Amino acid sequence: MLPRRPGPSVRVRVVEFQPASTAHPRRTREDRVVTEEPLEIRIESPGAAARRVAVTMRTPGHDFELAVGFLLAEGVLTPDHLASVAYCTDVGLSPEEEFNVVTVGLNAPPLREPAPRYAGPTAGAAACGVCGKDSVGEALGVHLRADPPHPDLRIPAGTLGALPERLRRGQRVFGRTGGLHAAGYFTAAGEPVVIREDVGRHNAVDKVVGARVLGGAPTDLPVLVVSGRIGFELAQKAAAAGVGILAGVGAPSSLALDLAARAGLTVVGFLREERCVVYTAPERITLSPA
Amino acid sequence: MLPRRPGPSVRVRVVEFQPASTAHPRRTREDRVVTEEPLEIRIESPGAAARRVAVTMRTPGHDFELAVGFLLAEGVLTPDHLASVAYCTDVGLSPEEEFNVVTVGLNAPPLREPAPRYAGPTAGAAACGVCGKDSVGEALGVHLRADPPHPDLRIPAGTLGALPERLRRGQRVFGRTGGLHAAGYFTAAGEPVVIREDVGRHNAVDKVVGARVLGGAPTDLPVLVVSGRIGFELAQKAAAAGVGILAGVGAPSSLALDLAARAGLTVVGFLREERCVVYTAPERITLSPA
Repeated sequence: MLPRRPGPSVRVRVVEFQPASTAHPRRTREDRVVTEEPLEIRIESPGAAARRVAVTMRTPGHDFELAVGFLLAEGVLTPDHLASVAYCTDVGLSPEEEFNVVTVGLNAPPLREPAPRYAGPTAGAAACGVCGKDSVGEALGVHLRADPPHPDLRIPAGTLGALPERLRRGQRVFGRTGGLHAAGYFTAAGEPVVIREDVGRHNAVDKVVGARVLGGAPTDLPVLVVSGRIGFELAQKAAAAGVGILAGVGAPSSLALDLAARAGLTVVGFLREERCVVYTAPERITLSPA
Repeated sequence: MLPRRPGPSVRVRVVEFQPASTAHPRRTREDRVVTEEPLEIRIESPGAAARRVAVTMRTPGHDFELAVGFLLAEGVLTPDHLASVAYCTDVGLSPEEEFNVVTVGLNAPPLREPAPRYAGPTAGAAACGVCGKDSVGEALGVHLRADPPHPDLRIPAGTLGALPERLRRGQRVFGRTGGLHAAGYFTAAGEPVVIREDVGRHNAVDKVVGARVLGGAPTDLPVLVVSGRIGFELAQKAAAAGVGILAGVGAPSSLALDLAARAGLTVVGFLREERCVVYTAPERITLSPA
């Protein structure tokens, strides 16, 4: 029997209520929901056994990209340190279970440990891990690039406004389940480069970044578009990847903007065809085409 | 100088683009964004020093509720074990930093450790932490109640359909920032009991549950409504609190439904005034008032 790799959505039986409908006030039908499964991310490096660094709830598919993108965002590796990526090969696992653990092999020791928010009970038990002097920069484990990315990038607001629809068109699973976030890399001309979906919006961004790393391509594309809100972790991932503009359909948070301002990252919220709001580094957004 | 407690939103200066507008195609104005700050949750128990069990990015406010609700959902404590809740009192902290660490005191050892997804590098380093035999029940740390909650609960679909609007009316900060998730407890008659907001939807649920615990009230109310999608962690929190129906405006995930089916929890998705979809334990939802 071949191992069954879980798909991005599963069939379920549901009861739909439409109280005001005379024809079908209550009916039983088939539906699809997005698949959510845990993924354990492990690293192994020369002379060190494989060890867990994170567990994330994700939609199966593009798991290697997710693992690599996550580790890049956390500053654990750069593309140069990547030696291998593989599913777990522990003996005694059922076929389904094999696909819930990914081990990333490094050719050198990890550059740093993932941020304390991924660390648990035994990490820094006695000290005030987060309430230190510089909560964004140090305790949250943000490593900013030396130079702000894309200093000369300029994009018309109208070009940006078309991207949510392009992102939506690149989503394969959303239409079947309504339950997926998306993230996509775009060029300065608004052309899509890579689009990924996941039940977790952080995972969608990790997959997009990881796809570039595994493809041997740069991660610092001009524009990263996300389907939801822009919280701290998304800003951190965008800054680590080196993008110029992080644009989202939803609202940003205060801590995301703090980080973006320090990283020289342009944050655009409430992105629509007819309107958008620019929160940081607004010089990159122009009114009309150059 | 009195310590400054961070508020739920902060003022920022933004640039708004409306390319098609002749009057205001580009204008600078003031706006508000939702506050996001890290919260470190610690526990201390008789004979054991305080130690970190989780770090979550949250909107400041109702922090004690958040910490207690989180620990209840993780099975670390029951209301009977709660001895104290306090902000960090480490010396040398700046006023702002004090409010980013909450210590929960237990009158007994913790019942269990938080699930591995909150645990980091050193937890279970060698073993396959997640890909074990029973990923939902054991590795993800779900502890189901012995008896399914609310066996006799019956609620008309029309009553449920009115709750998203009631939840929305209970949100104070959303209108100013557009960036907040909400969760609310409701009675079987659809009356709101407690509503909380947060930049993270898991946190909003923890706050609602924690509010009940700190108020000395039961957590197993009939209905819990959330403003977003229903992922595994939300289903886990609802099951741990003992609610009968978890209803959300968005779509559920496969793992949330697996858990709900085992816990006897009714999951309702795409909740609207005119329509809703019931995924598990549909017998609790009726077409017309009793």
